[in-house]
Amino acid sequence: MIALPKNIEFVEVGPRDGFQNIKEFIPTQTKLAVIEKMIAAGVRTMEVTSFVHPKAIPQMVDAAEVAKAIVANYQDHGLKAMALVPNLTGAKKAYECGIKEVTYVISASEKHNMANINRTREQSLADLQGITAEMPDLKIRIGVATSFGCPFLGKVDYDLVLSLIEAVVGYGVDSIILCDTIGIANPKQVSELVTAVKEKFKNIRLGLHLHDTRGMGLANTLAGLEAGVTIFETSVGGLGGCPFAPGAAGNTASEDMINMLHAMDIATGVDLDQYLEAVKIVREQIQPVLTGHMAYACKYGNV
Amino acid sequence: MIALPKNIEFVEVGPRDGFQNIKEFIPTQTKLAVIEKMIAAGVRTMEVTSFVHPKAIPQMVDAAEVAKAIVANYQDHGLKAMALVPNLTGAKKAYECGIKEVTYVISASEKHNMANINRTREQSLADLQGITAEMPDLKIRIGVATSFGCPFLGKVDYDLVLSLIEAVVGYGVDSIILCDTIGIANPKQVSELVTAVKEKFKNIRLGLHLHDTRGMGLANTLAGLEAGVTIFETSVGGLGGCPFAPGAAGNTASEDMINMLHAMDIATGVDLDQYLEAVKIVREQIQPVLTGHMAYACKYGNV
Repeated sequence: MIALPKNIEFVEVGPRDGFQNIKEFIPTQTKLAVIEKMIAAGVRTMEVTSFVHPKAIPQMVDAAEVAKAIVANYQDHGLKAMALVPNLTGAKKAYECGIKEVTYVISASEKHNMANINRTREQSLADLQGITAEMPDLKIRIGVATSFGCPFLGKVDYDLVLSLIEAVVGYGVDSIILCDTIGIANPKQVSELVTAVKEKFKNIRLGLHLHDTRGMGLANTLAGLEAGVTIFETSVGGLGGCPFAPGAAGNTASEDMINMLHAMDIATGVDLDQYLEAVKIVREQIQPVLTGHMAYACKYGNV
Repeated sequence: MIALPKNIEFVEVGPRDGFQNIKEFIPTQTKLAVIEKMIAAGVRTMEVTSFVHPKAIPQMVDAAEVAKAIVANYQDHGLKAMALVPNLTGAKKAYECGIKEVTYVISASEKHNMANINRTREQSLADLQGITAEMPDLKIRIGVATSFGCPFLGKVDYDLVLSLIEAVVGYGVDSIILCDTIGIANPKQVSELVTAVKEKFKNIRLGLHLHDTRGMGLANTLAGLEAGVTIFETSVGGLGGCPFAPGAAGNTASEDMINMLHAMDIATGVDLDQYLEAVKIVREQIQPVLTGHMAYACKYGNV
């Protein structure tokens, strides 16, 4: 029989990874409305924005405004408000807004790191050193992009992932998120890589950031759960992750994952009915057709 | 690590379960074109049609024509051409067309059996007895509808499934397909029910017919694989299974499942590139937006 945990840390990344993939600017008030509805539903860890250069991603031009509003109202009331930062400059900006934990992304694939954030892995690691030196009380999670596959390399060798983790653990990082950046992972691969990482690094907290591009989002989630992963990052409505055609999926939808976990008696801390109200705002005010499933299906138990 | 089989029996049900959910009549030649393209791709077990009363499902008015054409051209060349039959009359019609194996559906839930085929479980079993008596050389698979959930009962007790299997095994049936008729199953439930069935009935061949309504199609497939299931029924493009809104999924898409299985080195006998040509016909000539994922994503390995 399947061995499953009793609970997981659910990380909502829609306001960062979802919104940044929407071309038309989403009014700041709409962003805040979605975020606040999710907090009301019980979400306790959330990437609320991304401190990237607004020339690179104009959608995130209001990063400071969003971060400050959420930090002011919710950070001392149980919310872990996180932000993604691509470099030292971004980390400083996040820190100035009161963000206490950031996701810092480095690609396992050198070529993808260059394409994504225009620097080598070594340069990214040097910036990581700068962040830990300048802001020693800022907590850092490392998102290992292209952990399973890369647009340039194809399948990514496990060694590339392991060597990157080894380097960041050297800077005191203890939380690692393996990201399936292009939605190419399969459950066997998830099981193998997670097992390899856990065997080599016994004291890290391990998470997965999975896409549903090929329909395997929840299958990979299941493989991760069985292999002992306890942190899962997903996006409201399935927003983000570069869907490239009508009907094509991006990130695994938070509501789909929450529904599956609850059906298997795994606690997330979220009230799904309330969460679906946030999905409704997204569907009505941002993207009419969502790639997640629970926007269209009744939840488990309500048949 | 995940324990997985080396191969499975892939059963294409799109020409039956997919087509029957399309309201507008699909020209017989289009049906045959899709079927023939799938055979060319390597599909070796397929429900090619359904012998239901055309008043109930007008789409299946050409059942005999489709069945005869495929039987004449392919049945002696490696194809197991199957049909769904809801009763003795349907079984006789299938048999007269040269079909050698049928799927006979009975619901675990009495209420759903009444709603679906207007008879009690006992009446369905009496017809099954009639089929085995009148056509002893016709092979029969039992599709156990509502194995995991029912629109009337909610969650279905495992005992209702086990008692139905016990009854049909008494008529010599040795192949059982557990059907997630409303797409409500979760991986833990799949694992538990499959394990219970396999423990009680050691000599049957066990299959799963899974929907993707809530995004769990492939996660449930994975749970089934791990629990020892060797037959999987899916539908081209994800057609069928009553999707009820744009973006809502029905059956698990064959191409999504094949892609996942191949990525995990599980053989299906199908050439995915060729199979995707059948998906293309479906998309261009039947339903422009498909709920499966691989109609929009490149296959594993081609990144």
